[in-house]
Amino acid sequence: MSPGDIEALTFDVFGTVVDWRTSVARELEAALGGRGPARDWAAIADRWRALYQPAMEAVRSGRRPWCRLDDLHRENLRVVLDELGIAGLTEAELDHLNRAWHRLDPWPDVAAGLTRLKRRYILATLSNGNVALMVNLARYGGLPWDAILGAEVARAYKPLPEAYRRTAGFLDLPPAACLMVAAHNDDLVAARAEGFRTAFVARPHEHGPAQTVDRAAAYDFDITAVDFTDLADQLGC
Amino acid sequence: MSPGDIEALTFDVFGTVVDWRTSVARELEAALGGRGPARDWAAIADRWRALYQPAMEAVRSGRRPWCRLDDLHRENLRVVLDELGIAGLTEAELDHLNRAWHRLDPWPDVAAGLTRLKRRYILATLSNGNVALMVNLARYGGLPWDAILGAEVARAYKPLPEAYRRTAGFLDLPPAACLMVAAHNDDLVAARAEGFRTAFVARPHEHGPAQTVDRAAAYDFDITAVDFTDLADQLGC
Repeated sequence: MSPGDIEALTFDVFGTVVDWRTSVARELEAALGGRGPARDWAAIADRWRALYQPAMEAVRSGRRPWCRLDDLHRENLRVVLDELGIAGLTEAELDHLNRAWHRLDPWPDVAAGLTRLKRRYILATLSNGNVALMVNLARYGGLPWDAILGAEVARAYKPLPEAYRRTAGFLDLPPAACLMVAAHNDDLVAARAEGFRTAFVARPHEHGPAQTVDRAAAYDFDITAVDFTDLADQLGC
Repeated sequence: MSPGDIEALTFDVFGTVVDWRTSVARELEAALGGRGPARDWAAIADRWRALYQPAMEAVRSGRRPWCRLDDLHRENLRVVLDELGIAGLTEAELDHLNRAWHRLDPWPDVAAGLTRLKRRYILATLSNGNVALMVNLARYGGLPWDAILGAEVARAYKPLPEAYRRTAGFLDLPPAACLMVAAHNDDLVAARAEGFRTAFVARPHEHGPAQTVDRAAAYDFDITAVDFTDLADQLGC
């Protein structure tokens, strides 16, 4: 792959761009820390996140109609709180806590890396997060996207082919002119099947210090990088 | 209206943000100036633009399926060239000329005004231009949008109600938290009918020195401003 063939970079966001686990744990503690015993907030963040794929799968499979991620997160938050036996939050408190997903810290290399990459390439989100969530995350973390694309505008959750295909379509680019950037092997495999170029960026602590999955690229992707600085270097930005 | 009630500003783009007439005339001259007699390039830009509403109306009315603006522009360019008796352009030359609409100069107050407004408000396009066109225009003119929304992602051309309603929906905001900014009375009337707040920004030379339409606000909109600097002033940014 020559970097000159690429016109747009499309990004997975949760895990690849932002450190959701640390951020959500912090928000859980701020919202719930006064209600009962000390808890393992990172483990609760993991539990909330673990409900994410099954919830999307219900939509992907057609068992339920389109539902944006904010609403799936809200349902899953109820489940988590029920499991913990935490009750009594007002609707406004639940809304605020649910929007923890709109206030996730970028990894330290992200803002500077994206700024370099933007000089040469179109930068678009290709996340399962909905538009409002992505917009708020970008404003919170200073992420200079050219466009918010992905699941909600494509009306398809990754890794369905339509999520990738329609994103390239909105950019009016052939998939081969789009480089999918993700810290997850399965996302890149699905993007590659639709003709995207692929860049694996390692985020070995996305799931905490004991992470076992996605520690390294498991396939021969076009690029493997240790962070967005390295990605910008490899793309000559 | 209190500026504190507003969370997002949604912008018409052609005419309100960018000076399409001067820019397209310049591109027409650059592409066609060597082919035949001297011509009134601004008048040709006007003719090309005049075919815009009828082309969209065919889509709005359902007479033809969804078609993005780049493709409507391309068809209309053929009509204009046929009328002028200009032939012999290659497909690549036609593509380049058609993408004149991706290289439109912002009005002089725009970049600084948007930068001020962005500090407090979400800024989104609500244009009939398609996503790729809007992305390229933003990169060309340094327009710091938070999101590219509008006709293509809403699958409805303004002034259909769905164009406004679905844009507010993507932002997860009630229409009353969205301020539609446009230099065109009819756009604002349609947005207001969907519950948007409205700001008229005068662009009395959009159609050249002899412009008669849209020289001033014809209705009692929430804000009337002379340019984006004035709009930022009035919104306390």
